[in-house]
Amino acid sequence: MAKVIIIGAGGVGGVVAHKCAQLPAVFSDILLASRSEDKCVAIAADIERMQGRVIRTAQVDADNVPELTALLEAERPDLVINVALPYQDLHIMDACLAAGVDYLDTANYEPLDTAKFEYKWQWAYREKFERAGLMALLGSGFDPGATNVFTAWIAKHHFDEIHTLDIIDVNGGNHGYPFATNFNPEINIREVTAECRHFENGEFVATPAMSEKMEFTCPEGVGTYNIYRMYHEELESLVVNFPTLKKAQFWMSFGDSYLKHLEVLGNVGMTGIEPVEFQGQQIVPIQFLKALLPDPASLGPRTVGKTCIGCVVTGIKDGVEKTVYVYQVKDHQDCYKEVQSQAISYTTGVPAMIGAKMMLEGIWKKPGVWNMEQMDPDPFMADLNKYGLPWTVIEDYKL
Amino acid sequence: MAKVIIIGAGGVGGVVAHKCAQLPAVFSDILLASRSEDKCVAIAADIERMQGRVIRTAQVDADNVPELTALLEAERPDLVINVALPYQDLHIMDACLAAGVDYLDTANYEPLDTAKFEYKWQWAYREKFERAGLMALLGSGFDPGATNVFTAWIAKHHFDEIHTLDIIDVNGGNHGYPFATNFNPEINIREVTAECRHFENGEFVATPAMSEKMEFTCPEGVGTYNIYRMYHEELESLVVNFPTLKKAQFWMSFGDSYLKHLEVLGNVGMTGIEPVEFQGQQIVPIQFLKALLPDPASLGPRTVGKTCIGCVVTGIKDGVEKTVYVYQVKDHQDCYKEVQSQAISYTTGVPAMIGAKMMLEGIWKKPGVWNMEQMDPDPFMADLNKYGLPWTVIEDYKL
Repeated sequence: MAKVIIIGAGGVGGVVAHKCAQLPAVFSDILLASRSEDKCVAIAADIERMQGRVIRTAQVDADNVPELTALLEAERPDLVINVALPYQDLHIMDACLAAGVDYLDTANYEPLDTAKFEYKWQWAYREKFERAGLMALLGSGFDPGATNVFTAWIAKHHFDEIHTLDIIDVNGGNHGYPFATNFNPEINIREVTAECRHFENGEFVATPAMSEKMEFTCPEGVGTYNIYRMYHEELESLVVNFPTLKKAQFWMSFGDSYLKHLEVLGNVGMTGIEPVEFQGQQIVPIQFLKALLPDPASLGPRTVGKTCIGCVVTGIKDGVEKTVYVYQVKDHQDCYKEVQSQAISYTTGVPAMIGAKMMLEGIWKKPGVWNMEQMDPDPFMADLNKYGLPWTVIEDYKL
Repeated sequence: MAKVIIIGAGGVGGVVAHKCAQLPAVFSDILLASRSEDKCVAIAADIERMQGRVIRTAQVDADNVPELTALLEAERPDLVINVALPYQDLHIMDACLAAGVDYLDTANYEPLDTAKFEYKWQWAYREKFERAGLMALLGSGFDPGATNVFTAWIAKHHFDEIHTLDIIDVNGGNHGYPFATNFNPEINIREVTAECRHFENGEFVATPAMSEKMEFTCPEGVGTYNIYRMYHEELESLVVNFPTLKKAQFWMSFGDSYLKHLEVLGNVGMTGIEPVEFQGQQIVPIQFLKALLPDPASLGPRTVGKTCIGCVVTGIKDGVEKTVYVYQVKDHQDCYKEVQSQAISYTTGVPAMIGAKMMLEGIWKKPGVWNMEQMDPDPFMADLNKYGLPWTVIEDYKL
C-alpha cells in the first residue's frame, strides 16, 4: 500500500499510470501531475474505463521547485516517478530532497541549451540523498533501464567476467507517416544527430553521428534491419559498474526514409537548437519543427509491427569464451490495446512501474543515487515476465 | 535619352540596373527603388565601381499605390521596370495608370495566399492601358521572356505552322550548398510543388507535380540532366498567340539532392503557405524556411557551371515536318564577373533591360497589355546577341 506521484503526462506517463493502476495492492494511491492538467484528466478517464480504477490528477510546473515541493509536502507520497522531460530531472530531485521523498526517473539530465546528456549532474546528488536517507533510482525505462538489468543478469548468471556489450534497439514499427518521431521529436533528433561515442579499451571514443552501421536479423521473425551505432546514456554507468568490459556499444535501427528526412532537416538548419530571429521573435528551429510533426501520442492507433530490444554480451565462463543474448519483443498493437500507447512508450513505462514497485516493496531500497545495474537483477527480471515484457535468452547468437 | 525607375533590389534588380547603366545613350537617368533602400545603395555602389556610372536610389513600398503614384508623379519616368515580387504586379500597374507611365515586368501576378499564377488578372488591364495610351509589356525575363521571343522567331523564320513546343530550362550550376534556391525560395518552392499543367489538343491537362521526367543532353558540352515537366506561365500566352500548337510543355532540370530536400521539406510541412500557430504567433512555414536558407544573392560568388535554356519547336515548312531548337548557354562565373550575380538572375535581368530598350526606342510601342511573342522578335533577338545572351539555332535536334 503506497502513494505515488507520477510527473509527466506524455506517452510514457500514460503507460506508467495505466500499469500502476493495474496493481492496486502496490500502488494504492496514484496522483498524475503535469504542467497541462487536461492531459492528466484525459489519461485518468482512459484508466477508469480500461482498468476500472480512479486516479487523481494535479497541475504542477515541475521546473518550479517551491511549487513542486509544496505539492509533495501536501501529498506526502512514498515515491515520485519522474517521466517529465530530461531537462527537469534536477529540479524534481531538488523538490524530493526538500520534501523527503524517494525519486525515480527514466532518462538522465540534459541541459536545455546543449545536446549533451551525462550522469555527472545527477551523480553529484549522491551524498545529499544518502544523508537524507532517501533513494533515487536513475534510468528505469527500457534503454536505459531494462538493458542495464539485462546486462547485470547476464553477468550474474552466465559469466565469470564480461568483455563486450552490444545493446541493440530495433523498432520494426510502421506508423504510415513519411516522417514522425516515436517520442518527443526534440529529444529524439538531438539524440540521433549527436556525435557517436562508444567505449573501447578503457575510454570513450568519438566517431561522427551514424557513421557505423551493420545489418541485424532479429529473432522471432521481427525482421532484418540496418542498425547504426550511436551514443546512449546507459553506456556511461555500465562501463563503470562492469569494469571488465573492454568494449561497449549501442545500436539503433533506422529506416532509410527516416534518415533521409533527418539529413535534409539537418542540412537546412531545421534541427538546430540555437534560436534564430524571425519576425522579431526568437525561434528555435527544432521546436518549430516539433510543432509541424505529428504528435507522438497520435501514432499509437496507427503503428503496426514489433520492437526488439536486447543485449548481446561476450565474456568468459569457466575459462571458455561465449556469447549470450537477452532480448524482449513487443507488438505495437498489443500495447495500444492494453494501455492506448505504441510499444516505444510501453517498453519505457513498464520498467518505470517495475522499478517503482521494487522500491515500494523494499526489494530495491538503499539511500543514495543508483543506476539500475547496481541492484539485484533477479526480482526485476521476474517482474518483466509478469507485467508485459517477457524476455528470452539465447546462447551463441552471433552478431 | 530616357528616364527609368527600376522597382526591386533583389538579384534580378541588380542585374537590370547594371545592364541599363551600361547603355547611357538609352537609359540616361536610372532610379533604383525598393522597400529597403540600403539594398539599392549597395547595388548603386557596385555600379559606380564596375560600370563607372552614378544611379539614384529611393525607398518605396510598391504595395502602397498612393505612395508609389506620388513617386512616379514626382519623377515622371518614361518607364517603370518592375522586378519586385509577383504579388506586387497589380499595385504597380495601378500606380503606372494613375501616373501615366509605361510598365514592364518579368513574372506574372500571383496572389499572396494561393500558389497559382495566371495572366487573367493582368490581361484584365488591357482596356485601361489602351484607353490611357500606355503600354504594359508582361514577362520580359528569360522564361517567360526570351523563350516567348525564341518561339515567335522560330515560327516566323522556320515554319509555316508550328505544332509542338518544348521549353527546356537546364541549370547545370553548382553552389556547393546541400540545399539553396537560386531565387526567392518562397517563389521557387511554390512553383516546383505546384501541380503540373501542359497543353495538349486544345486544353491544359493536369498531372501531379514532377511526375513526368526525361534525360536531356545539352549542346556545347553543358552536360546531361534529368528534366521534369512542370507548369510555367509562358505556356498560357503562347498557346493563345500560336493557336496551331497541338502540344506545349515546359521542362526544368533538377538534381536528385534538390528533389530529395524538396520532398522532405514538403513531407514535414515546411513548404506550406498556410500560417501555423507557434508561440502565440502566426508563422508561415515556407517563410521561416526562407529565413534559414542561404540568401540567393550570396550564391553568386560560389556558383560554377552553366545554364542552357531554349525552345524545341516542331511543325511544317513547305509541307515537310521538321524540328528547330534555339538555345542560349550562359556561364555563372562570367555573369558574376560582369554584374556580381549568377546566371539565373543574369538571364532574367538582361531581357528585362532589352524589353525596356525596345519600348524606349519606340521599336516595340503600342498601347495595351502585351506578351512578348506579340511583338516582332527580330530586334530583340539581335539585342540578345549584343548584350550578353548570344543564342544558337540547331535544326533537327532530337529530344
